[in-house]
Order: sequence, then C-alpha cells, then structure tokens
Amino acid sequence: MSSESAFIDTLRALATDPAARGLVDDAAVLETGDGALVLTHDMIVEGVHYLAGDPPEDVAWKLVAVNLSDLAAKGARPIGALLGFTLGDDQWDRAFAAGLGTALTAFGLPLLGGDTVSAPARVLGLTAIGRAAMTPPNRSGARPGDLLWVSGTIGDAGAGLRILKGELGASPALVERYRTPRPRLEAGGRLAPLVAAMMDVSDGLLLDAARMADASGCAVRIALDAVPLSDAYLALLGEARLEAAGAGDDYELLFATRKAVAPAVLALAEEIGLPLSRIGGFEAGAGLSLTDRGAAVPLPEKLGFEHG
Amino acid sequence: MSSESAFIDTLRALATDPAARGLVDDAAVLETGDGALVLTHDMIVEGVHYLAGDPPEDVAWKLVAVNLSDLAAKGARPIGALLGFTLGDDQWDRAFAAGLGTALTAFGLPLLGGDTVSAPARVLGLTAIGRAAMTPPNRSGARPGDLLWVSGTIGDAGAGLRILKGELGASPALVERYRTPRPRLEAGGRLAPLVAAMMDVSDGLLLDAARMADASGCAVRIALDAVPLSDAYLALLGEARLEAAGAGDDYELLFATRKAVAPAVLALAEEIGLPLSRIGGFEAGAGLSLTDRGAAVPLPEKLGFEHG
Repeated sequence: MSSESAFIDTLRALATDPAARGLVDDAAVLETGDGALVLTHDMIVEGVHYLAGDPPEDVAWKLVAVNLSDLAAKGARPIGALLGFTLGDDQWDRAFAAGLGTALTAFGLPLLGGDTVSAPARVLGLTAIGRAAMTPPNRSGARPGDLLWVSGTIGDAGAGLRILKGELGASPALVERYRTPRPRLEAGGRLAPLVAAMMDVSDGLLLDAARMADASGCAVRIALDAVPLSDAYLALLGEARLEAAGAGDDYELLFATRKAVAPAVLALAEEIGLPLSRIGGFEAGAGLSLTDRGAAVPLPEKLGFEHG
Repeated sequence: MSSESAFIDTLRALATDPAARGLVDDAAVLETGDGALVLTHDMIVEGVHYLAGDPPEDVAWKLVAVNLSDLAAKGARPIGALLGFTLGDDQWDRAFAAGLGTALTAFGLPLLGGDTVSAPARVLGLTAIGRAAMTPPNRSGARPGDLLWVSGTIGDAGAGLRILKGELGASPALVERYRTPRPRLEAGGRLAPLVAAMMDVSDGLLLDAARMADASGCAVRIALDAVPLSDAYLALLGEARLEAAGAGDDYELLFATRKAVAPAVLALAEEIGLPLSRIGGFEAGAGLSLTDRGAAVPLPEKLGFEHG
C-alpha cells in the first residue's frame, strides 16, 4: 500500500459525514435549499501533473480544467472557484495569471477568493464549486448487467506526455490534449440523469474503471477493441489500445448505464457531437478483466498513472 | 508593491462576481435558497506560518483554525472542509492526520474531501465552508463615528513565536497561542448582527485595522493603552503594546460598531466570557493614527506581519 493510500485511509476514518461520500468520490455534495452544491479541490504539482517546460498559461488552464472535470462527472454547472497559489518567479506568475483569466472566461467561472503564499515549491490548488439540479451521480451505482461507456477518445494526453518527454514524434493535437484538457461539462450535465454511476478518467481508463467496479461492488469487463482512439493517436501509435487505456490525464467521462438507456446515450452523443462509446459492462463478482475482439487479454502490470 | 500585491491585483481584475467581494474579504459569500454559504481557502507553509519544529498535530490544528477564523469573522457556522495535502515524511503525515482528527472533532467539522499529492515541499491548504443565517459582515462597512473593537488579547501569538525563536524566555501559554489559535466562532456568530464591519486579525492589529479603514473609506485611530494584553504577555514583556499591536497570528476578531451598539457588545462579552475591548474609532479621512493615554504616537515602520 502506498503512503498516499495509508494517509487517505486515515482521513477516510475522519470523513463520516454523508456529504463526504466516504471520500471515494472526487467531489463532495452539500444539499442546500435550492439544489445540491458540489465541491472539489484538486492540486497540481510540477513534474507530477505538468512538466517544467509547460507554458504557465497552460498550467493555469489545466488547474481549472482538472477541477471542472470533477464537477462534470457530477453533472454540475460551475459557479465559482477559490485559488490556492504559491508565489514564485514573477514572470511565471504573471503568465499564470493571464492563463487563469483565459480559463475563467472560457468556462464562465467566477474567481471568488483564495490565498497566495510564499513557498519553496510551486504547489497549485483550486477549489471549484458547482451547482447540480438533481442529486449528483457517484461512482458506486453500477450493477451487474450495466453497460460501461466512455466519452471522447482515450490515450491522447498520455501520448502527448510521451511526445513532450521526447519518446515519440511530434503531434500538436496530442500535446494540446495533455496540456489543455477540456472538461466534459455539457456532456456531464446531460448524462447525469441517465447514468447509474459516473466519474472522470484522470489516472487511466483501466485503473478508473476498476475503481468504479470496486466502489460498486461488482466486476467490470472492458473490450479493448471498443476503446475509442483519435485519428492523431492512430497516426502516431496505431492500435495501441492497451497503452491508451493505461495512460493518464484523459479527463473524459466514464459512466455506467442500465442496458435500456443505451439508445438515449447514443442519441445524446449525436446531439452534442461528442463520441460516447460503449466499451464494456459490469458483472457479478469483483475486479477488472479485458478482452480484445472476444479473446481474453491478461491485465498489464500497471493499470494506470497514479498522480499521488 | 510586493509581488504578492501585484499578483493579487491581477486576480482582482478577474474576480468580478459579487460573491468574490472584490477579493478584499477573507471569504467568499454565496447566496443559496436557505441562507448564505461562506467559503474560504487558506494555506500554511513551514517557516512562514509555522516553524519546522512545531508538532505536526499542532500544524494540523493551525491549518483548521486559521480557516475557521475567517468563517468566525463572517459569523458563519462551519459545515465542512476540503483538505489539500502534500505527502512527505510518513511519520510526520501520520501525526498530522491524528492532529487533524483532533481539530475536526473539536470543531464538529466534517471532512468532505480534498486532494493529496506528492510535492517537493510541504504546502498545506484547507477550504472551509460555513453557513450564515444572515448576510455576513464584511470589512468595508465602518463609517466615521464608529467604534473599533477587538476580541480576546493581542500579541500573545507573536510573543509565542519569539519564544520559539529563542528571543524570549519560556511561557507555555504564549507558545500555545502561537501553535494552536482558537477561532472565535461563538463570538463571531453572536457579533455578526451587531457589527458594521468585521474581520479576523491575522497579520497584526495595526495592519488589519488599516485595511478595514481603507476598505471602508475612512480613517481609523487606535488607543494603544486600550489594546488588551494577557497576564502571560504582561509578565514576559510588560506593557509593550506597540509590539503586541504589530505582531501577527492573533486570530482574534476586529470589528466596528455604531456607538449606540456599545452596551450590547459589552453585555455579550459578559455573557460569553470573552473580553471585547473598545480600542479606538473611525473618522473621516484616510489612514491609521495611534495614541497612548491621549498623546499621539508615531506609526512604526512595519504595521504587521505579512504572511505572503
């Protein structure tokens, strides 16, 4: 068990309020007189969540986007944010502030407050607050027989990271997917009433699907051949679906639905112009299993990328 | 202008939502169907907000307390918190988690979520959420003719810090005031309907009073001889009121009231058993002035301790 897991287990014992959802969800839910408020706090750190060479403007975008991705998975509309910022190099900080302005404007997200401190390292935090019309979905509602779906395409950001590390040839589209992820806010809001469980994919499709199955008390099977890949990914890496499914930073939506809901999901995909792909299903039991064109595939040693 | 001020000015241009209160307040206020939600996010950093030798349990307490002090100044009752934690040394982290449990229990504060990350330095953040029955006071409501008040005693934490730095003799009571501040939640909740303006004193009484005057568009005068000192402070430092008024980390409440409200404030102090001392007043104009037993006192070069 990693020290992060041990620490989180200790915190979990403290998080007994229903709004905490046992800390297994990426966001807290507070009921108010006019709907639910959804709150999330994600931090990003150089070398873990972004690279030292990434433009500060893009780092600001990513800080906002990863938090809004948690709200998207709750079907929540963002209504505000608090920034936790460590002051460092003036020029970097100014560029970050400009990028933050761009991101806040793009998402119509008001900056409500926060804190700035002097610190020996850059650790950036954001608290995002959203409002949901209904009780938000969580990751524990999948049942045996449910279908597993994912939005968009998988593996692009992971390939972008490998490009930036010099491991792969150039592809501006994939680098953009790594540096400036797009939280699926519209899809999340529209999907919330349709799903049995929903979360965002941040640590790798396989790892996050295993977490959803675990939280839901069932097993999950993924058909690798159904995992959606982008043209840019295919051009650079071909059908490397296992690599795509184990890479992090997708910030797509992973969700479970009852079988009967499938036509509504497909109709929604058409309407909003975002692929929503059926990639597997839930079964009685526990754990994750993989197939490729019907044949069983052994699990890779590492299911994903833990940002720890 | 410090780089923090410049950065905050840039952010202020982004914070146009009424809930942000122009970032001049320590907390954001969101109106909901059943009262106002108050949100604050404060970070603490070793060597800036606490000392490397401070017990991790006390650091956890301080992280919670400084955030709840912001809620106290809004008259809000804490309803939950999100933790932003950087994993470091296992033993330290475990002790921190234990201290966090103690603090959460003491304040009846549910841990609702948050994030833990690996980082090269310890930067600890907490988002505290509170609920207020009425529109919370801010720091800009003081008017010429209003009285200036402060809760508890001033300068204790600053003296505690000097003790820990080896500059002063021992006093467990003063060290405790530095390491484990007590947010004035009950007083804040009871004062909220009585005050014209309120904030907490975190960067020094003089600096924070000057900020209240500035936000309120008037001048403020403080009678140093009325600044309340503890017996422990007096025993160690005597009547060093200018030093007390310029030291940080008090986490007391600083508030303005109309003159006619004075008897109600004094009755409240009696009822809750916490000194509420009248230490000055507001006038037309701008800036801060000091007196001691009626005689003008020049301002010190540094009004307080900016944690920036």
